[in-house]
Amino acid sequence: MSFSLGRLFKITVFGESHGFGVGVVVDGCPAGLRLSESDVQVELERRRPKDSITSTSRREVDKVRILSGVFNGSTTGAPICMLIPNEDVRSDYYELIKNIPRPGHADYVARIKYGGYNDYRGGGIFSGRITAAIVAAGAVALKLLRHVGVKVLAHTVNIGGVEVEGLDTNDIDKLEKAVEESPVGCADPKKSEEMLRVITEVALRGDSVGGIAEVLIYNVPPGIGEPLFDTLEGDLAKAFFAVPGVKGVEFGVGFKAASMLGSQYNDQFVVVGGRVVTLTNNCGGVQGGISNGMPIVCRVVFRPPSSIKIPQRSVDLSRLEEVEVRLNGRFDPCILPRALPVLKSVAAIVLVDHLIISQVIPRVLR
Amino acid sequence: MSFSLGRLFKITVFGESHGFGVGVVVDGCPAGLRLSESDVQVELERRRPKDSITSTSRREVDKVRILSGVFNGSTTGAPICMLIPNEDVRSDYYELIKNIPRPGHADYVARIKYGGYNDYRGGGIFSGRITAAIVAAGAVALKLLRHVGVKVLAHTVNIGGVEVEGLDTNDIDKLEKAVEESPVGCADPKKSEEMLRVITEVALRGDSVGGIAEVLIYNVPPGIGEPLFDTLEGDLAKAFFAVPGVKGVEFGVGFKAASMLGSQYNDQFVVVGGRVVTLTNNCGGVQGGISNGMPIVCRVVFRPPSSIKIPQRSVDLSRLEEVEVRLNGRFDPCILPRALPVLKSVAAIVLVDHLIISQVIPRVLR
Amino acid sequence: MSFSLGRLFKITVFGESHGFGVGVVVDGCPAGLRLSESDVQVELERRRPKDSITSTSRREVDKVRILSGVFNGSTTGAPICMLIPNEDVRSDYYELIKNIPRPGHADYVARIKYGGYNDYRGGGIFSGRITAAIVAAGAVALKLLRHVGVKVLAHTVNIGGVEVEGLDTNDIDKLEKAVEESPVGCADPKKSEEMLRVITEVALRGDSVGGIAEVLIYNVPPGIGEPLFDTLEGDLAKAFFAVPGVKGVEFGVGFKAASMLGSQYNDQFVVVGGRVVTLTNNCGGVQGGISNGMPIVCRVVFRPPSSIKIPQRSVDLSRLEEVEVRLNGRFDPCILPRALPVLKSVAAIVLVDHLIISQVIPRVLR
Amino acid sequence: MSFSLGRLFKITVFGESHGFGVGVVVDGCPAGLRLSESDVQVELERRRPKDSITSTSRREVDKVRILSGVFNGSTTGAPICMLIPNEDVRSDYYELIKNIPRPGHADYVARIKYGGYNDYRGGGIFSGRITAAIVAAGAVALKLLRHVGVKVLAHTVNIGGVEVEGLDTNDIDKLEKAVEESPVGCADPKKSEEMLRVITEVALRGDSVGGIAEVLIYNVPPGIGEPLFDTLEGDLAKAFFAVPGVKGVEFGVGFKAASMLGSQYNDQFVVVGGRVVTLTNNCGGVQGGISNGMPIVCRVVFRPPSSIKIPQRSVDLSRLEEVEVRLNGRFDPCILPRALPVLKSVAAIVLVDHLIISQVIPRVLR
Repeated sequence: MSFSLGRLFKITVFGESHGFGVGVVVDGCPAGLRLSESDVQVELERRRPKDSITSTSRREVDKVRILSGVFNGSTTGAPICMLIPNEDVRSDYYELIKNIPRPGHADYVARIKYGGYNDYRGGGIFSGRITAAIVAAGAVALKLLRHVGVKVLAHTVNIGGVEVEGLDTNDIDKLEKAVEESPVGCADPKKSEEMLRVITEVALRGDSVGGIAEVLIYNVPPGIGEPLFDTLEGDLAKAFFAVPGVKGVEFGVGFKAASMLGSQYNDQFVVVGGRVVTLTNNCGGVQGGISNGMPIVCRVVFRPPSSIKIPQRSVDLSRLEEVEVRLNGRFDPCILPRALPVLKSVAAIVLVDHLIISQVIPRVLR
Repeated sequence: MSFSLGRLFKITVFGESHGFGVGVVVDGCPAGLRLSESDVQVELERRRPKDSITSTSRREVDKVRILSGVFNGSTTGAPICMLIPNEDVRSDYYELIKNIPRPGHADYVARIKYGGYNDYRGGGIFSGRITAAIVAAGAVALKLLRHVGVKVLAHTVNIGGVEVEGLDTNDIDKLEKAVEESPVGCADPKKSEEMLRVITEVALRGDSVGGIAEVLIYNVPPGIGEPLFDTLEGDLAKAFFAVPGVKGVEFGVGFKAASMLGSQYNDQFVVVGGRVVTLTNNCGGVQGGISNGMPIVCRVVFRPPSSIKIPQRSVDLSRLEEVEVRLNGRFDPCILPRALPVLKSVAAIVLVDHLIISQVIPRVLR
Repeated sequence: MSFSLGRLFKITVFGESHGFGVGVVVDGCPAGLRLSESDVQVELERRRPKDSITSTSRREVDKVRILSGVFNGSTTGAPICMLIPNEDVRSDYYELIKNIPRPGHADYVARIKYGGYNDYRGGGIFSGRITAAIVAAGAVALKLLRHVGVKVLAHTVNIGGVEVEGLDTNDIDKLEKAVEESPVGCADPKKSEEMLRVITEVALRGDSVGGIAEVLIYNVPPGIGEPLFDTLEGDLAKAFFAVPGVKGVEFGVGFKAASMLGSQYNDQFVVVGGRVVTLTNNCGGVQGGISNGMPIVCRVVFRPPSSIKIPQRSVDLSRLEEVEVRLNGRFDPCILPRALPVLKSVAAIVLVDHLIISQVIPRVLR
Repeated sequence: MSFSLGRLFKITVFGESHGFGVGVVVDGCPAGLRLSESDVQVELERRRPKDSITSTSRREVDKVRILSGVFNGSTTGAPICMLIPNEDVRSDYYELIKNIPRPGHADYVARIKYGGYNDYRGGGIFSGRITAAIVAAGAVALKLLRHVGVKVLAHTVNIGGVEVEGLDTNDIDKLEKAVEESPVGCADPKKSEEMLRVITEVALRGDSVGGIAEVLIYNVPPGIGEPLFDTLEGDLAKAFFAVPGVKGVEFGVGFKAASMLGSQYNDQFVVVGGRVVTLTNNCGGVQGGISNGMPIVCRVVFRPPSSIKIPQRSVDLSRLEEVEVRLNGRFDPCILPRALPVLKSVAAIVLVDHLIISQVIPRVLR
């Protein structure tokens, strides 16, 4: 069940970095949703490197093909299979290092787990390439969310310690525009420049750098999510951890809550325009695992990408001998800019699943 | 499915704060495990307040009764149902405020979600009381883990900003002993005192305070966890978010990774005593969602407990009118000390499920 | 996951024949359903032996207690745990034969599967006693079905070859009344008498006899059930096979279809009173796994109860030696009369799950 | 979840009759299984019509392509995606009758369920074409079963009332050979001829005919299957009901048990060659839902195929008016011969899932 996510809206991902390509089956999409390959293509484009500085990795074309589940321009209720073929890539290099796990990568654990039968070329199923399939599924989820007015946005708030602070996140359209315009997906133009500088410097040294993204979800009605185990927070967090490089997730003020008092933290209720809202949103829109009607706010930390050109220590597992490994290739020095659409996608997939379970998304759309 | 956790080792929790009690059904425990009520009782005792300062809440006796699944002192392979009756508690107070959601609590979302039919007394199913059932299930999981040599430990590393640093976590037994001896579950005696002071002060003002706990899991063989969606990190995070008050989860160096370079972060491989290990453990023992054989290290942040005696703004939902709410009762000013066994329990439950899926825990124990 | 049934409406069963008792947790019942212990008790009474001839088994009182999930007389949306304690029963006898599997029973497979750790007293979890828990959960499902006008009925159509034919099943109330009045649950009074005679004769010889029950489900709207794997037929069949003694399930004309032509079998469409209906109902109300609006008709065959007083061959597994086994006790010579409410219950549970997935049962009832 | 089957070995099916093609994702196949496209192709060939008399349907070439999960000739542990493109087919005919549900088919329920958005061409996802994807997944399962010595066989035992009796099913190889040689998959040569004659006559009249298949599973070790809900019988039955046309499933003597006495039915235990076996196999190798080591025997009834050339009554749903419908095309007069490999496949998939859960199939094959 490892490659599936969701209960009533369920995606199943397949494919490898150096094989035929990647793909996804979306089972449980309600019938009657207008859907075309270009709807999906648009989201895939967001995952492509915007800039030769922030990403020097291979220029994947990522042309999606919808194989099933759509008829006369609408979803039919049947599973939607989407394929994204790989471009031709050279795998020779991986033969050279197939016994030498790259530090930071999943090479070592994959070899142990699959007894050496795993496809080690480019990380196989552990490659970031698989996120193209997730984004394709996310495109379907995002279109469904538009039908119920829910909006998802992901932006960069920290790269290498350069942190965005005091950003106004109330004007969604303005925020979205600023994010789109930044090469690093950062809504603060000054910080965006600084981040770009950090990435450039790091890239020149053949190194990489980490960062933090924030995901904002607007207009989720109160009462979505389930208590105890299938909480919105738990399901979102689990989905975020599927994105390669994620090492932490927090909601609202997150880890800052450790130093706060209850009298500071508690979001007090008031009536505004006949609706119950909270004065603050320290909890990030989720209480007891369930949406309270305020924007859902979460942050996700990415470790620096594992592929760096600086020599590192590793072990030749065929001889159990320590060796030095020097990686060659075109690597992303920072994954944040390209990870934003992936975060948006997994958040949308989780939300749609919960909105179907809560009977907010109808079975047949009109 | 909201009240169930796990796939092959699955727990289903039930009960309320002011009803008959709480309980759990553990389905999928292998046959042949020696199990008695006192095995479970021991873990439940750890959840009780140690100290009149750190917790002024009701002195729950938490006497567990095993109703099924154990025969002649061993598990049978059948579901294990365990009941923990509530002591008599007064619920009158909750009638007075049933239309006024307490800030920070799930009162508001519960009312929306369940159309007002939820049991609002003491938070009903959202009460921390439900964690007694989780701890009972955790006791079974912890016993199973002992059979495969896996050890789980939870300790306090931050309360109200008082942070433990540079703790040696290699000597497990010593660490465990120090944690047991501290009234706040903190292994650093000096910091433990400081934390106790913070809690005392906060309690005197009728306020509450947050904190951070660290969960350490030792001796997990490499190769446990599944790639992509059912990662160890994702499943642990989802389970931690089931613990009331948790608002963030991070693995290894966690959010600090944002400011790190790949050359600093990557855990390089070396051979020690014929085994492949990593020089550092910045990733917290999990790569690509799968254990690498190093200790699993994660941290969990708790917001300050929602119940405080300081007046707060809320809304009388029956009239949609703003009111002031002043809570009376015996509240925990800091949840960390009592949450540690709960974190340990959910971690153990997740681990056992993964170890069964990976066919490491045998079906019939000897 | 073996002891759970359902996805959004999910029951988890526990307990043994000779332990504390049996019970069930119902997770996913919408909030706002009026529910009392007497609602459940009524269904449990139907499971009790009506007659000293058709059943000589122990007179279980089956007093249910609702432990959670109900508040002020309504379901809260939280898990409903129900307990049915066992009466004191003597288990000495089972010690004598614990190494000698009773033919027909699950003693042998249980011993193999659980390495001898299973509770062998009275069949443990394999006992028909567990069906009391299923009936308790079924009572909740049946109450939910009443809210959407769906009606479930189970009746005996064959005992020991005495077969009901040409029964009019259109007048549901009349049919239900006739079933209630018959000691064997057969709506045809003449056949009912014959069946009773068969059972009496069989019981006198210390033998047992099989039979066939029919389950009828009225007023299911068209479009319920999912294509391919989660069909109504598949989910109902799987649930029926959970009832001890069931060895076959068929829908509509069932196995008779083997000898039919397409021109005879196909249910042709006509318009009656502005509604599309079929002229015949050979398919039993399900096409492509999905309800077509006609009554759902299925039949379930029960093997003769395994416990008989006639000597049988078995093996003493402790010595791997053939022995003769003679069972003593009070046994049901025919399970049909007592199995009817169990069939009704599992059918109701499956239906409710599908009606929630299809968004027909609302989350909050009014 | 409707298009997925299995828990640890899970298949997800997609595709339509007149779209791009059909396909399947197999998640949970252990790493290290030798697998090639020709392994799958062999099973797909068995699904093709053998004979111009038993099947006049389109001559699908069914060329499978493995897109993922196989590397250097072995499975990697990653999801295996397999595609089977459709040949060009004409869909014009279906435009003419898109408002007129064909009797027996799922056209009517599909239209209701999906609000008219379903792909109605050739039945869309309800088409028997989808079984090609199931057979592809079954090929993987069958190869896994060979590693643990389990053998699955399906043969025709009844067509249009011509019934096989007294067949010796002990010599598996001989039985398999006889089944392969018969154009209708019947191991009794004389009955095979009679069945062929029935089919020929029925086809000439433009009619269709039903039948019964038997599935035999040899060498399943005792103790496989789970008690109560996830029984071998229940899981096999549910999977069989996914095969278009199946309307009933029985185990062992099945519905004949209704007329049997316990003293006749009970399978008594004896010791043969140091092993515990049963004298008879009336229960069909499954007791209490769990394998007892004897061959698993089940029978599945197929209704006559729905497509016939004889005029039938239906309703034009766009005008709610009764009409006569006359179908044109090339139809299978009897589905049995082509359904046998599908039954074998779903049985194999269910068995593999249970054998992995029971930890009999190792995670990494050698």
